[in-house]
Amino acid sequence: MSDNSFGRLFRFTTWGESHGPAIGCVVDGVPPRMPLAEADIQGFMDKRKPGQSRFTTQRREPDIVRILSGVFEGMTTGTPIALMVENMDQRSKDYSDIADRFRPGHADYTYQAKYGIRDYRGGGRSSARETAMRVAAGAVARKILDHVLGAPVTIRGALVRIGPHEIDRSRWDWGIVGDNPFWCPDAEAAKAWEGYLDGVRKAGSSAGAVIEIHASGVPAGLGEPVYGKLDADLATAMMSINAVKGVEIGSGFAAAAMPGEEAHDAMRMKDGKVAFETNHAGGILGGISSGQDIVLRFAVKPTSSIPIPRPGVTAGGEEVEIRTTGRHDPCVGIRAVPVGEAMMAIVLADHLLRHRAQVGL
Amino acid sequence: MSDNSFGRLFRFTTWGESHGPAIGCVVDGVPPRMPLAEADIQGFMDKRKPGQSRFTTQRREPDIVRILSGVFEGMTTGTPIALMVENMDQRSKDYSDIADRFRPGHADYTYQAKYGIRDYRGGGRSSARETAMRVAAGAVARKILDHVLGAPVTIRGALVRIGPHEIDRSRWDWGIVGDNPFWCPDAEAAKAWEGYLDGVRKAGSSAGAVIEIHASGVPAGLGEPVYGKLDADLATAMMSINAVKGVEIGSGFAAAAMPGEEAHDAMRMKDGKVAFETNHAGGILGGISSGQDIVLRFAVKPTSSIPIPRPGVTAGGEEVEIRTTGRHDPCVGIRAVPVGEAMMAIVLADHLLRHRAQVGL
Amino acid sequence: MSDNSFGRLFRFTTWGESHGPAIGCVVDGVPPRMPLAEADIQGFMDKRKPGQSRFTTQRREPDIVRILSGVFEGMTTGTPIALMVENMDQRSKDYSDIADRFRPGHADYTYQAKYGIRDYRGGGRSSARETAMRVAAGAVARKILDHVLGAPVTIRGALVRIGPHEIDRSRWDWGIVGDNPFWCPDAEAAKAWEGYLDGVRKAGSSAGAVIEIHASGVPAGLGEPVYGKLDADLATAMMSINAVKGVEIGSGFAAAAMPGEEAHDAMRMKDGKVAFETNHAGGILGGISSGQDIVLRFAVKPTSSIPIPRPGVTAGGEEVEIRTTGRHDPCVGIRAVPVGEAMMAIVLADHLLRHRAQVGL
Amino acid sequence: MSDNSFGRLFRFTTWGESHGPAIGCVVDGVPPRMPLAEADIQGFMDKRKPGQSRFTTQRREPDIVRILSGVFEGMTTGTPIALMVENMDQRSKDYSDIADRFRPGHADYTYQAKYGIRDYRGGGRSSARETAMRVAAGAVARKILDHVLGAPVTIRGALVRIGPHEIDRSRWDWGIVGDNPFWCPDAEAAKAWEGYLDGVRKAGSSAGAVIEIHASGVPAGLGEPVYGKLDADLATAMMSINAVKGVEIGSGFAAAAMPGEEAHDAMRMKDGKVAFETNHAGGILGGISSGQDIVLRFAVKPTSSIPIPRPGVTAGGEEVEIRTTGRHDPCVGIRAVPVGEAMMAIVLADHLLRHRAQVGL
Repeated sequence: MSDNSFGRLFRFTTWGESHGPAIGCVVDGVPPRMPLAEADIQGFMDKRKPGQSRFTTQRREPDIVRILSGVFEGMTTGTPIALMVENMDQRSKDYSDIADRFRPGHADYTYQAKYGIRDYRGGGRSSARETAMRVAAGAVARKILDHVLGAPVTIRGALVRIGPHEIDRSRWDWGIVGDNPFWCPDAEAAKAWEGYLDGVRKAGSSAGAVIEIHASGVPAGLGEPVYGKLDADLATAMMSINAVKGVEIGSGFAAAAMPGEEAHDAMRMKDGKVAFETNHAGGILGGISSGQDIVLRFAVKPTSSIPIPRPGVTAGGEEVEIRTTGRHDPCVGIRAVPVGEAMMAIVLADHLLRHRAQVGL
Repeated sequence: MSDNSFGRLFRFTTWGESHGPAIGCVVDGVPPRMPLAEADIQGFMDKRKPGQSRFTTQRREPDIVRILSGVFEGMTTGTPIALMVENMDQRSKDYSDIADRFRPGHADYTYQAKYGIRDYRGGGRSSARETAMRVAAGAVARKILDHVLGAPVTIRGALVRIGPHEIDRSRWDWGIVGDNPFWCPDAEAAKAWEGYLDGVRKAGSSAGAVIEIHASGVPAGLGEPVYGKLDADLATAMMSINAVKGVEIGSGFAAAAMPGEEAHDAMRMKDGKVAFETNHAGGILGGISSGQDIVLRFAVKPTSSIPIPRPGVTAGGEEVEIRTTGRHDPCVGIRAVPVGEAMMAIVLADHLLRHRAQVGL
Repeated sequence: MSDNSFGRLFRFTTWGESHGPAIGCVVDGVPPRMPLAEADIQGFMDKRKPGQSRFTTQRREPDIVRILSGVFEGMTTGTPIALMVENMDQRSKDYSDIADRFRPGHADYTYQAKYGIRDYRGGGRSSARETAMRVAAGAVARKILDHVLGAPVTIRGALVRIGPHEIDRSRWDWGIVGDNPFWCPDAEAAKAWEGYLDGVRKAGSSAGAVIEIHASGVPAGLGEPVYGKLDADLATAMMSINAVKGVEIGSGFAAAAMPGEEAHDAMRMKDGKVAFETNHAGGILGGISSGQDIVLRFAVKPTSSIPIPRPGVTAGGEEVEIRTTGRHDPCVGIRAVPVGEAMMAIVLADHLLRHRAQVGL
Repeated sequence: MSDNSFGRLFRFTTWGESHGPAIGCVVDGVPPRMPLAEADIQGFMDKRKPGQSRFTTQRREPDIVRILSGVFEGMTTGTPIALMVENMDQRSKDYSDIADRFRPGHADYTYQAKYGIRDYRGGGRSSARETAMRVAAGAVARKILDHVLGAPVTIRGALVRIGPHEIDRSRWDWGIVGDNPFWCPDAEAAKAWEGYLDGVRKAGSSAGAVIEIHASGVPAGLGEPVYGKLDADLATAMMSINAVKGVEIGSGFAAAAMPGEEAHDAMRMKDGKVAFETNHAGGILGGISSGQDIVLRFAVKPTSSIPIPRPGVTAGGEEVEIRTTGRHDPCVGIRAVPVGEAMMAIVLADHLLRHRAQVGL
């Protein structure tokens, strides 16, 4: 089988290749009578689109999204919403030299091993260009959360590490995240990262990153035992993003080093409601949201396409040194921030509908 | 909806509570004409069952598995295989005092918030007792891998960290993993851990752990773009295990700190085949297996049930100190090793059938 | 893949063979805090169980159902409900002579062609014994309908044809359906059928039947465009019952012969609500319920196992005459009535939860 | 939830409304390295497209299909295939008068009851225009059958009844099916039907139809017990087509009237293979194909949109007489023939991949 769909009740299917005529998705399961316009989606597309600073790829894609179905007179109808973005700046000749080469760190070799064929232009289906449609679907998911809950859910992401350089969490300021080219919540770190990443870029290298996503306003009770746990679904959502190699919830790997009496968030009462003193759990207990903020992090490996020559092989079995000089992000992790936010919104919207199905609201 | 099933083509559904009459699962999609007996499963059950050392719970469960359907004259028939284990050592009175209390770190509060009701005896459905059936299903999955591939796939797990104490990887020896109570591949670490965990236990605390799972013999080509990526499915598989807070593939979070020219495994030719010089990718590129060993790690938080008093609340909104003095594992991570192995086998068997469906073998 | 599960949000999975130790099912997605006891299910099991008249098989199965999970102190908890029935009256030696024979009209040949192996005892997995678990799951589904809607949904079935003999619809009386061995709503027909079916039985032949199922109290709005239409899901539900060869909704095949101005139910207002003057649509328009009664019929072929010798073949390719003299229903359609009711309840409960998920109630 | 996808392993998702900018589908799970061009699909689109005779709607849609992804240099790549058809001849003003009216026999009322909103232009999502994308997906499915089996599967449909007028089966000639405007296999009936349908049209009425679909060359062994039976999946496939009210396999409802010794197809040996003497089973036993031709029929109700005034109601609760004078098929059953063929191909392709997954080929 092949699996280009995500979600159970809020469910979207993406299609398209990096250098095909267009990319798109079909979003199914959207509640009816919800206001939706292309402008609701475009703002999120713009956050992810390439070419916004010298730290992201210079490919010029306006990424203008069109709604082709499922919306009538400005309102969702409950039928599938088709979204499409035309590819404008495919330079397929840039890639012709890799038709018979397997680049290290890329999916070239594994796609060929699996299918015996691949669209090698710009990585074809394995390109991170696919994530544009996740962002589009995520914009719809955000609308669902607010519409069904009748109260806002706030989903925000930030880069907390680039290469080996972490932020200082004591300086965390959501207010400045949009003011630097890294979605960095620590102004000093952001300044330092500019120099660091310029150096990486000039050296022909690339850098990885760690992204943190928060969701506030999520009610307690979302998540399904035992194979549709909220954290398990978030893990697959994030790990399915290109170049992601790790996911952790709350204190994550660090929680494994804590003694039991510290790792478990103490529960107290506040204003007649259960309140937790810490949030090592990342807002999820037993796979179900607790009402605290949902907090997760994921690790993005450095961009695979770099000018420094790297040992690769050809389809014919020859050893070659491969340099990649096309338009690439020196740190793909930066543009993964809006994608991670989108996947968070998608998982939450799906689970909100799943919860409403079984239990009601 | 509720979601107690896992897998697409190799698919199992589990049922049962910690203190109900029995637990069980239904395994669907198993290829026919494959030899299968209860003894093939029991060995794996025995690896996970409680009470095997002073470092795991003293609950006495023989965990004898019965095959109730789907096998005829020693061979699978292609119809669903029902497996059942009777619960023998439920001491429900141990738990009556928590009927109206929400223990910190447990799913008590979130189950109640979701469903408005819960079987509180031993954690009910949220108990790690459910993982016994994952191990049973995993035993069937291992048979499928070998049967369909006609060559062995070796799946092995080990504890690489307990609390803050990591192994020394230079001493890694798979041969000794079964010789110590921790599934530890480093003999010296295992010795040191005994003292450490005795101290934890006597202090009334608990410890977390990091487990590493390897799969060798997996052919290149398993995994589905873009939402059924092999690593994304492994992430959800591991994150769905009780108390898991993080998952990483290959070099994982560490990969995000490497420069691009190191993070991507160099490709060379060896004996006419593609060979990788390192395995930072953990055997997966673009969501598809590369033929290298699949390698992942997951982090287990410390056991939530501890004798040290911890701040909790009651269903009535009273603040209370909760001590748990029943039978519990001081480090639930230990028994998560065979569970992680089982989930690896399950994901691989599912993807092998998925690949056969679309591409053939 | 294999597919022993039915439903999306209300979802059950069955397992077991005719002559194995037991049969069972796991019912997932049940709303929590709903009263449920074995007695709620047993009454429906009793309607279907064998040996209740001379017109059904003489196999003695008390079909006592046990709840093994998912219910705590008399209430559903939202976790999976495992149900099991032990097989008591397997006479496996009755079937040993068919181990290497393919009986005409049975699944012997096709199971062997598919799997290369089959449990031939009593038809193994292809036996109508599996339908006992549909009835059990259907009993849970009925509870969900009433519980979630807060108003009763009445689901009733009747035999409207046996062999070539139809009822007279002008004599339809639901009140007498339980008073004759056929679930026949026409007292005169029921009397005539006794003689007819005695003749069939004595001749060593068998008879088919047409069953009609009605559901009253179903709100308008259930059903999903365009591949989860309510009628499409009912069609697969009924066609999946053993020996069913046709399904029709409302006027069904007869609707195709009507002129357009008759076939479409006129709409009028009554007490401020939309009212239909006829029900050729069977309560479904565009795949969505209209608030009218849901009405469908399905055709059951004559029992395949008959004493009259019939031409079959052996596994070795020999032509043989096959007489079946074991315990069999002369008309399997009779016991299909409670099964059809159960499948109706299951589809409606699933769609009620699906509707609540997307639209709310 | 909403459900605009069909199939498990060969799976397609459709989107679009009758009067939106376009309609389309995404086809997932297609085997790689299979030649595929738009021309392979267009021929089937042309069979279904409107305006080909005076007996179908006069809406002018060229229905030119475009492949937007999943095909590279003329070959499938294993990634999702997006297909799109632009709507060219929407005359939305034709429909403005029905914005607040519920037409009898249409989905107007039920969509409104479900969603509280609907795109009323041309029936919106409930329009049979959606079936164009089934035909497109069906063309891909046919290629898969031949490609994977390495031998042709022939799928053909015919109209066997129009209104009350059946064909004479003794005159069945597949060769003439394409030579008359009805896909009728009986030349004399086709001639008679012209006069009949002209009369219906002139009277402002409409006619129903019964369609029969045959598939030859299907190997024994396709179909999954017990909820993915081949006949159960065919039933839902056909019943999901607009205006279908009944489905039967093989002798269908007539089988229920036969004595047991006639209803079950005698098995003999021929050229060393199992051969059946009749095909009352329609090529399916126990839900699994037997190697005989798969034969089914489905009933299509008369077109709902007719000039004869019919009693309907308004959204405001007023009783009105509704005449429909737009462009409509006097018998929608005619254009259902290529749709039924497509759905047959889709179900078979899906089951072929499902069988390969579990059992291999």
